[in-house]
Amino acid sequence: MSRWQPDAKGRLAKAALELYCERGYEQTTVAEIAGRAGLTERTFFRHYADKREVLFDGTAALQELFTSAVAAAPEEAAPIEAVAAGLEAVCASFAGRTEFARRRHFVIAATAELRERELIKLATLASALAATLRRRGVPEPAAGLTAEAGVAVFRIGFERWVAPGEDRELAQVVRECLAGLRTAVGAA
Amino acid sequence: MSRWQPDAKGRLAKAALELYCERGYEQTTVAEIAGRAGLTERTFFRHYADKREVLFDGTAALQELFTSAVAAAPEEAAPIEAVAAGLEAVCASFAGRTEFARRRHFVIAATAELRERELIKLATLASALAATLRRRGVPEPAAGLTAEAGVAVFRIGFERWVAPGEDRELAQVVRECLAGLRTAVGAA
Repeated sequence: MSRWQPDAKGRLAKAALELYCERGYEQTTVAEIAGRAGLTERTFFRHYADKREVLFDGTAALQELFTSAVAAAPEEAAPIEAVAAGLEAVCASFAGRTEFARRRHFVIAATAELRERELIKLATLASALAATLRRRGVPEPAAGLTAEAGVAVFRIGFERWVAPGEDRELAQVVRECLAGLRTAVGAA
Repeated sequence: MSRWQPDAKGRLAKAALELYCERGYEQTTVAEIAGRAGLTERTFFRHYADKREVLFDGTAALQELFTSAVAAAPEEAAPIEAVAAGLEAVCASFAGRTEFARRRHFVIAATAELRERELIKLATLASALAATLRRRGVPEPAAGLTAEAGVAVFRIGFERWVAPGEDRELAQVVRECLAGLRTAVGAA
């Protein structure tokens, strides 16, 4: 028998999310996740450091995608337009991942430790975005403020998107939030 | 000898912040804090649950002050104007507390556990502000977005205020950040 397991990582992630939703995150063991996926614990640990990492495995890729798109926006784009380009890139990456995203959101909302980890992830993302804006020549405090605004739009848009009954694309919901922020906060 | 200790709580807080800055938060014990303040450990625990609470003791009061001022803003005030009124109330409460605020910020920035606690505090504050705005009739997502924007302005303004060389009032620095956000994010 070959040791190669086709899409072992994806199967483990799917099994983990199912179990976290069914039994609760804290009650689920790595052995159960591996069992549900038809794989061994050893295979689990080849892909993930622990059961929390299944939920945060995409953090670095998300940040890289967001900051790269901000960096690549046309030179003449205003800071908020560059952030909007980053939001579009990130939203596009969620296409076809609605079910995983919904389950992940549900599990994180139910567990204090995971909510804290998510806050740290988003604060780190905002810092990285601010640094990217500064490299585009945006001074502080505008860089930090625009970065925080972009992350708030993403977070609130994402929460609305995963809510029951929402069937639009993530990009559409996030665009609506960005427009809402610009109207609500814009200079009088 | 009377058991009454004039301003024991204030003396403990001052002693704690001095020690956290001198020796590091993790290396400081409650016994050392009490000793520096000329008080007993027993007196410390009458005022604070643990050494972390010295740094987060004002959290509930800050949130109450912020949300009350937002709730009390004139009915016709736009959401961002109501949040601006909340920011003014909070900033005014820091008058005469620059040294404590600077030390607290320094200690929190140096310790991961405290940075996480601070993130949770600010996320909780944003939720409370969003709820206050909804009670003013502001719909979602505008309420959540304006609340997040207000907290971002406070956090970034506060960080600038405690930076070396800054000698303006907190209110002035925060007003500058709010104006900066409104210009940077405002509808094109």
